[in-house]
Amino acid sequence: MPTYKLTIEYEGTRYAGWQRQPHHPTIQQHLEEALARIAQTPISTVASGRTDAGVHARGQVVSFRSPKSLAPEEWTRALNAVLPKDIGVRKTECVSDTFHARYQAHSKTYEYRIFNNSVRPVLNRHRVWHIPKPLNLDALSQASRFITGKHDFSSFEGSLSDNQNPFCHLYHVGIESNLPLVRLTFTADRFLKQMVRALVGTLVEIGLQKRSPDDMKSILEARDRRKAGKTAPPQGLCLLKVEYRDERERPDL
Amino acid sequence: MPTYKLTIEYEGTRYAGWQRQPHHPTIQQHLEEALARIAQTPISTVASGRTDAGVHARGQVVSFRSPKSLAPEEWTRALNAVLPKDIGVRKTECVSDTFHARYQAHSKTYEYRIFNNSVRPVLNRHRVWHIPKPLNLDALSQASRFITGKHDFSSFEGSLSDNQNPFCHLYHVGIESNLPLVRLTFTADRFLKQMVRALVGTLVEIGLQKRSPDDMKSILEARDRRKAGKTAPPQGLCLLKVEYRDERERPDL
Repeated sequence: MPTYKLTIEYEGTRYAGWQRQPHHPTIQQHLEEALARIAQTPISTVASGRTDAGVHARGQVVSFRSPKSLAPEEWTRALNAVLPKDIGVRKTECVSDTFHARYQAHSKTYEYRIFNNSVRPVLNRHRVWHIPKPLNLDALSQASRFITGKHDFSSFEGSLSDNQNPFCHLYHVGIESNLPLVRLTFTADRFLKQMVRALVGTLVEIGLQKRSPDDMKSILEARDRRKAGKTAPPQGLCLLKVEYRDERERPDL
Repeated sequence: MPTYKLTIEYEGTRYAGWQRQPHHPTIQQHLEEALARIAQTPISTVASGRTDAGVHARGQVVSFRSPKSLAPEEWTRALNAVLPKDIGVRKTECVSDTFHARYQAHSKTYEYRIFNNSVRPVLNRHRVWHIPKPLNLDALSQASRFITGKHDFSSFEGSLSDNQNPFCHLYHVGIESNLPLVRLTFTADRFLKQMVRALVGTLVEIGLQKRSPDDMKSILEARDRRKAGKTAPPQGLCLLKVEYRDERERPDL
């Protein structure tokens, strides 16, 4: 059975997140229904990781095996014809049978968008967190230096996680400002549950000068979720891309 | 009674356009309801011009008179608290009694966004026209030279218009490409009904090499709507800004 890798885009607004669950629409459910309709048999999918309710993706990666063999561009075309308008396939690739979208992910990049303006956003409202008071971006930038590198990120882990390993290597934090839009990007080998949103919630408290940039260091060292700031709302978050070792070694695969 | 000028933003997706009409929700209706609620009396509004169903605005300008006098920032705050989430006030200004949002408009700028990609847009889908085949942007640029300046634009006027004057001075056509996004901007003293969408529909046929850039000249000269291309869909269009002579002479008004 051939294995395929999908790069998908979705607007999370009306979904209860990536992962299938009873009684609520999810992206995985719609994708698996579309695959089953095309392949005429049930097909299960593996994503690089879950995204929460309301969180978007530009480059979520999903793998699946199918008894039905189609050319990559045929999968893309057929899936885009069947999927709801707020979920789309950007690219399909044939990959080796050993490919696993979750375990082989080498790094992931998330974007978090803030609308920093006294009046509320309209056209952007499903894609940003509205912060009415001006953010001090220098303070944000100073604070971000304490979190880059490999750390125990327990202070930024959602409380209902059953994860055993709290260490992540945060390779890069980017801060771009094109006011009123402020765009934060985070690249790491892995992320804990709601970690980006907890980091953003804390960074925003620092940007609003409710805490000092140096507080980021003590919060990180405390390994206690209660020390960090609030979890930022989901609609500002977007999974931009997932990179795989294989891709770097064999870019034409 | 003081006169106020509002700069408003809206997502046109779920509205039958700016102008009030029976049986369909419109932006004017929601804005006038919000004003009436705040002023405790019926208030009528005048916009710089209508926008069609599904068309968006970043900087539509609306004027109104109110027996209730409030500071500009109080109108902004109160209206944003009452209006639906897809309509918002960006700014309120006090203006002279002679201000008229429609008759005194000096120029308007529209943006039209095209998503030029083989696969369909997802996150952007309510803000772009999807053109799957590659556009020749040089051809678009060549064609746009024939339409700048003052012309009779009858060939690009929607068929149900009762307008008597077909002349518009198109000051500028901008073409920006950040693929897959192509952004066209149009600045003119005035626009005929559906003129931008007819221009874009024709330019896209030229970009797809169904017509040559030189055809733009003969289409314009024909003064016949049937000679031009199809009307581009509404969701790619956004009214960016409206400028007034008074603002230039008295920027602090």
